[in-house]
Amino acid sequence: MENIDTAIAAAIENYHELNAAVVDELVEEPSPLEFMQFVSRNRPFVVRKAASDWDALKHWDAQYLRRVMGSEPVQVAVTPRGNADAVVEDENGQPLFVQPHETPEPFNEFLDYVHQDTQCPPEQQNGRNVKYAQTRTSISPPSPIHLFDDLPENDNLREEYYSLLPDIPESIPFARLALEKEPDAINLWIGNERSVTALHKDNYENIYVQIRGQKHFVLLSPVEMPCVNEQLLEQARYVPEQESGKLVIERSEGGETLPFATWDPDEPGERTTPFSHLAKPLKATLEEGDMLYLPAMWYHKVSQTAGEEGFACAVNAWYDMEFAGGFWTANSFLRDVMGAASKVVKYPALQMSDER
Amino acid sequence: MENIDTAIAAAIENYHELNAAVVDELVEEPSPLEFMQFVSRNRPFVVRKAASDWDALKHWDAQYLRRVMGSEPVQVAVTPRGNADAVVEDENGQPLFVQPHETPEPFNEFLDYVHQDTQCPPEQQNGRNVKYAQTRTSISPPSPIHLFDDLPENDNLREEYYSLLPDIPESIPFARLALEKEPDAINLWIGNERSVTALHKDNYENIYVQIRGQKHFVLLSPVEMPCVNEQLLEQARYVPEQESGKLVIERSEGGETLPFATWDPDEPGERTTPFSHLAKPLKATLEEGDMLYLPAMWYHKVSQTAGEEGFACAVNAWYDMEFAGGFWTANSFLRDVMGAASKVVKYPALQMSDER
Repeated sequence: MENIDTAIAAAIENYHELNAAVVDELVEEPSPLEFMQFVSRNRPFVVRKAASDWDALKHWDAQYLRRVMGSEPVQVAVTPRGNADAVVEDENGQPLFVQPHETPEPFNEFLDYVHQDTQCPPEQQNGRNVKYAQTRTSISPPSPIHLFDDLPENDNLREEYYSLLPDIPESIPFARLALEKEPDAINLWIGNERSVTALHKDNYENIYVQIRGQKHFVLLSPVEMPCVNEQLLEQARYVPEQESGKLVIERSEGGETLPFATWDPDEPGERTTPFSHLAKPLKATLEEGDMLYLPAMWYHKVSQTAGEEGFACAVNAWYDMEFAGGFWTANSFLRDVMGAASKVVKYPALQMSDER
Repeated sequence: MENIDTAIAAAIENYHELNAAVVDELVEEPSPLEFMQFVSRNRPFVVRKAASDWDALKHWDAQYLRRVMGSEPVQVAVTPRGNADAVVEDENGQPLFVQPHETPEPFNEFLDYVHQDTQCPPEQQNGRNVKYAQTRTSISPPSPIHLFDDLPENDNLREEYYSLLPDIPESIPFARLALEKEPDAINLWIGNERSVTALHKDNYENIYVQIRGQKHFVLLSPVEMPCVNEQLLEQARYVPEQESGKLVIERSEGGETLPFATWDPDEPGERTTPFSHLAKPLKATLEEGDMLYLPAMWYHKVSQTAGEEGFACAVNAWYDMEFAGGFWTANSFLRDVMGAASKVVKYPALQMSDER
């Protein structure tokens, strides 16, 4: 399979030769046509200060959010180390895909916790759980036919945070006109720097707007799939122990598995494939009011910095991606060829399984 | 390489599942945004009667063309069987890529010849050469970097047919606005049903408008590349023998080769690859005034029917395609994987070379 390896490496190198190593920055929102040109190339961009005149940007300090939301219950993801939807090794070193403990909390209590957490000196954070108000990350299913029944389970800004919805524009005109649809989901995300979203991809065109604090994106194009060492991981979840409340990992009863990236662009020498060194991650930091177009099927790892108010807050809209044309097919083909070449590295050791 | 074969077949089947088996028909020209949506999906469409108000459509009968062009010399492609830029076997059965004999002729004499040829009963056509006023077909080079130096050699409507240019709109606004460029070439094509253009692809977004007669397109998407049995063929050219003027094949001195499709959708059982049976060619016939968007990298075989005036005539515009994004990379990857799998069938016999 020497030639197949060469073909995979050539695809990644070819892509980098033909595309810039930076995220484009626009000075204003694109027209629908300009947006469609980016969608067509499946390339991200940032618009600085795009949301300057959103009511959310003007009003969403801690006091305002407490007043509007009060003690309304919101869904909170709780993890021991800020690792919701992430790869965690069990006691035998076996990697699992672990979802957070999800529990409803009164909004004001949740916000107090995040605020205290942000103030808490690092040496005292040990043993203190991390809380994140988030929409469950959608994981790419193997086929778009399956996906049509599998819309994001959480659309939290139009559900539990409905009271805040009027502070967000009714729609993002350039995206609605270009994609000819409204978003499948509009989501609110509140947390602090202790929460990190592991590298993953979504089947959605994504418009992401930072309201408070900063968001730090590390991005990889779909053609860099051979770099990220996707593996079928057993699914698990954090659950609190009955007595202590301490979070422990519980495997799914049916032993369900799910393909997930195990390579981390911030630990580029660990859990590599023979192609990981060819990855050229793009980086983008969103400041308050900045907007990111994150194209469908791009891998992204996301971390954040709390703003002056002691939390980071963002809003995003997911639009169903286009499955017609050749883009979905091309990505599936790359995945199938990578699978056929069995270029999978066992986690966590650097043993290459090269069964040809 | 069983798995690689499976991956290639799955890509073709996946594409067909996600895309319609017909060419979309629009009732009017698309807006720039609508056009960009088609470009983004790399999918063809036909606009019926799009060119109804073009002066070319109103005026271009034989008398008008003779009056405007007179005896101006134009480049004419001459072949024994209407097979310009086509695969022809030499005396040993070896396939060659044969270009036509190209020679300047006074326009009115060329048009007289085509007209007589159309009137000529089939039984008397034997031994009578076929003439076609065409732009040399651009053949996809292996890399876009090379391409940038390799614009189409012929841009005949802005050169030798300059007198007819005022009868064509100055630009096609939806294409200019969406692609943000003017065409690299605008071409005129005049011939009759004896000329057929063999299955090939171009590195251009192509807007094709039928003025007189009909054009019959057979189209294959880029993902069907594994079906068309591309082979490296030695280049040759028809040249007239000194005494008789009879056209004979002369190989290129340097033995240059060129990759070219050897499978013919009209002979689907001949010169097949293991994937040819998965092809689902789309068909479209353009009547006078109809417009076709032929997306970049689509394979097309083109035949024609003369109109009442005894000839078929069409105009097209080639726009440089987008090499950024993942589309070019995906096509190159498919070609490389196909090459690595060595799924090449020797021409003309049905011997599969399956060197793994």
